[in-house]
Amino acid sequence: MIEIAIMGLGTVGTGVARVVEENAPQIERKLGEPLRVKAVLVRHFKEGPYRHLMTDDFKDIEGDGDIRVVVEAIGGVDAAYRYTKRALAAGKHVVTANKQLVAERGCELLALARQKNVNYLFEASVGGGIPILHPLTQCMAANRIDEVYGILNGTTNYILTRMVRTGASFEEALREAQEKGYAEADPTADVEGVDAGRKICILADLAFGHQVSPGEVPMEGITKLSLRDVEIAQQAAYRVKLLGRAVRMPDGGRTAYVAPHLLPSGHPLANVEDVFNAVVVKGNATGEVMFYGKGAGAMPTASACVADVMEALQESPQREEIGWSPDAAGFVDPRELPSRHYFRVRGTLEDAAAAFGRVEVLSEGAETAFLTESMTAREAGLRCSGLDVLAHLRAL
Amino acid sequence: MIEIAIMGLGTVGTGVARVVEENAPQIERKLGEPLRVKAVLVRHFKEGPYRHLMTDDFKDIEGDGDIRVVVEAIGGVDAAYRYTKRALAAGKHVVTANKQLVAERGCELLALARQKNVNYLFEASVGGGIPILHPLTQCMAANRIDEVYGILNGTTNYILTRMVRTGASFEEALREAQEKGYAEADPTADVEGVDAGRKICILADLAFGHQVSPGEVPMEGITKLSLRDVEIAQQAAYRVKLLGRAVRMPDGGRTAYVAPHLLPSGHPLANVEDVFNAVVVKGNATGEVMFYGKGAGAMPTASACVADVMEALQESPQREEIGWSPDAAGFVDPRELPSRHYFRVRGTLEDAAAAFGRVEVLSEGAETAFLTESMTAREAGLRCSGLDVLAHLRAL
Repeated sequence: MIEIAIMGLGTVGTGVARVVEENAPQIERKLGEPLRVKAVLVRHFKEGPYRHLMTDDFKDIEGDGDIRVVVEAIGGVDAAYRYTKRALAAGKHVVTANKQLVAERGCELLALARQKNVNYLFEASVGGGIPILHPLTQCMAANRIDEVYGILNGTTNYILTRMVRTGASFEEALREAQEKGYAEADPTADVEGVDAGRKICILADLAFGHQVSPGEVPMEGITKLSLRDVEIAQQAAYRVKLLGRAVRMPDGGRTAYVAPHLLPSGHPLANVEDVFNAVVVKGNATGEVMFYGKGAGAMPTASACVADVMEALQESPQREEIGWSPDAAGFVDPRELPSRHYFRVRGTLEDAAAAFGRVEVLSEGAETAFLTESMTAREAGLRCSGLDVLAHLRAL
Repeated sequence: MIEIAIMGLGTVGTGVARVVEENAPQIERKLGEPLRVKAVLVRHFKEGPYRHLMTDDFKDIEGDGDIRVVVEAIGGVDAAYRYTKRALAAGKHVVTANKQLVAERGCELLALARQKNVNYLFEASVGGGIPILHPLTQCMAANRIDEVYGILNGTTNYILTRMVRTGASFEEALREAQEKGYAEADPTADVEGVDAGRKICILADLAFGHQVSPGEVPMEGITKLSLRDVEIAQQAAYRVKLLGRAVRMPDGGRTAYVAPHLLPSGHPLANVEDVFNAVVVKGNATGEVMFYGKGAGAMPTASACVADVMEALQESPQREEIGWSPDAAGFVDPRELPSRHYFRVRGTLEDAAAAFGRVEVLSEGAETAFLTESMTAREAGLRCSGLDVLAHLRAL
C-alpha cells in the first residue's frame, strides 16, 4: 500500500482523488501495489466524500512518514511554493499541475528535490492530460531540440474557433466561453496570453536546458485581435491561432514569446479547434512531431498527476534531463527572430510594396492586407513606419 | 564512458551510429557521461566510416563486459531473436526498432530481460521517431486504455494521399512511392497491412496488458481498394485511411485489426497526409490524445533507439507497465465490433434501404454508395447478402 496526500481540493485535487479511486485496478497492476489517498489539505473543512481525509494543518502531512508523495493542487505561488519546499525537504516526492509555480520556481524546486533524493514532477502543467514533457525530455533525449511551439491554451483557442465559425467578435465569443465553463469569471491570464506564456517557459526550460523566466518573455493575447483579420486570414486559406513559441537561435541563444499567428490552413496546428491543445516539437533527428488532445479539464489533468505519482515512485531522482540550469543568460529578444509578417494597412498595394518589396496580398480595397517575406520583427517594425498600420501579426 | 554495440548496419543501424556521433553533446549532457559505439555486428565487412568497429562474430559483443547496451537493427525474427536472447542472457540491455520480433516474441523477451535485470525497449518499433509507447505506458498509466487506433504505415498513407490528390490508381501511386524511396521493391508487408498489423499488435499488448498475436489479427491492406471509392468518399467529405485499431470490448475482451476506413474529413486523422503517421490513444480519464509525425526514416527511428539506450541505462527493469501477460485468451473476432459501414452496390437507394434501413447516401446512380448505421461487421455481412456488393469498407 502506497499512501499519498493531496494539497488543495479544487478541480485538479478532486480529480486526483477520483482517478485514484476509479482507476484503482489499472494503477495497482502497474505499480504492483494499491495506491491510497491518506490526507487532503484544505483551508476550510467541507462536507463531501473526502471529508474524513481532510486536515487544515500542513504538519499532519509533513510529519506523516507513511505519505510518500504529495500532489500540490493549490495553485498560485505563495502557499504552493512554501508547502512544496517543506514537502520536498521532508523527503516526499511532489507532483503538480501548477504551471505558474514551475515556470517561476521550478529550477530551484528541482534542485531541492535532487538534493533530497526525491522527484518533483509536473507533466500536467503543460497540456493537461496530453503527454508532452516526458516525450520531450526522455523519448526525444537523443535530439537537439531546435524549436517547440503550439496552441497551449484551450480557452483562447475556443474563442478563436467561435470567431471563425460564427463571426462572433472577441467579446461575444468570450462570453460564450464563460457560459460554457471554458473561461473563468476573470479570464485575464488566458486571454492576455499569460497562461500560454508560463507553459512556453516550462517547455523552453526543458528543451534548451536553461532558465527562461516568465518576466522576460513577451506575452500577447487575443484581446486586441480584430474579427476583420481573422476573416481575411480565413478567406485567404490561413488561420489565426494563439501560439507560444520557443526557438533555439542559430548563434546558440534562445528566445520565447506568445502571440497570435497566421498559419497556412494545411499546417497541422491549423485544424486544432475548440478547446484542444497541440504542441509541435522539432528535433534535429526526429523532425517535427505533434502532441494533440484536450489541454485542460479535471480528469485529464488529474490523470497526468497520478501518472507522475507512479513515475515519482519508480524513477531515479538523479536524471539530468528532467531539469535545467538556473543560468538565464542567452535569452534573445524575439524581435530578432525572423518570420513572415501579416499587416493590414489603410492604403494600397503600392504603399505596401514600397515599404516591403515583394508581398503576398490577402485582401485589397480601401484597406490592404498582406504577408511580407521573412524578416525580423524589428525590421518589419522599421519598414512599416510610413504606413497607416491597422493590424500587425506574425505568420508562421 | 558508456559503450554500446549495434547489430546490423542497414538504415536503422547506420542511423544509430550517426545520431550517437552527431548529437554527442546533447546525449552526454543528459546521460552525465559520453556514449560510444564500440562494436558493430555485420554479416559481410564493408568499407566506410564504421569499418574499424565491425565484427562478424556475435561472441565479440556477447563476451565484451564493457558493452552495456546492444541495439538490434538486424530486422526479421531468426538471427535477431537468437542474438537478442543471448545479449539479454549476457546481462546487456537490448533496444530495437524491430516490430516483427516484438510483436511475435516481445512478451518472452521482456520476461527474459526482467529475469536478467536488464531492459528490453522498443519505442522505435511503432511510429519511428514519434514518441508513442512511452506516453501510452507511462504518461497515461493512470488511465484505463479503451482504444488505440491510427495511421501506422507511411507508405500506404503516401499512396492514399496521391490517389486523392492526383487521381492515380493504386498501382500508379505505388510506382511513384517506389521511385521516391517511400516503398520498398517488395512492398508486400506495407500494402497488405502486415507492417501496420505488427504495430497494432504491440500497441494492443501494451494498452491491454495481454498478448495479442499477429496470427490472430485480421490484416487487410489497400491493394483491393478502388480509386472510385476513394473519390466518392472525398466528394462526400470523408477520407479513406488505412487504420490499425485495437479496442477494449465492453465485456472485457479485446480485439484488433487493420483495414481501410472512411473517416469524416474533420477527424484529426483525416488530415494526416503523405508519409506521416498518427496514433490516437483513448484513455478513460484523459480522453483522446494524438501523437503525430514522420513514422519512418533513418534518423527519426535511430534517435528513438538512442533515447531508449539512454532510458535503458537509467530505468529500473522491474517496471510492470512496460510488459504484458502471455495469456492471449479473450481475443474477440473484430467482426463483433460495431461500427458504421460503407457499401458501394450495383443497385438503387431503395435496394440499400431495404437491406439496411436508414442509410447516409454518398453517391447515387447506376451504383449507390452509402453508409449504414452502426452494426457489427457480421451483421453488415448478413444484411448485404442480397445486394450486388462492389465495395465494402468500415467507417469510423
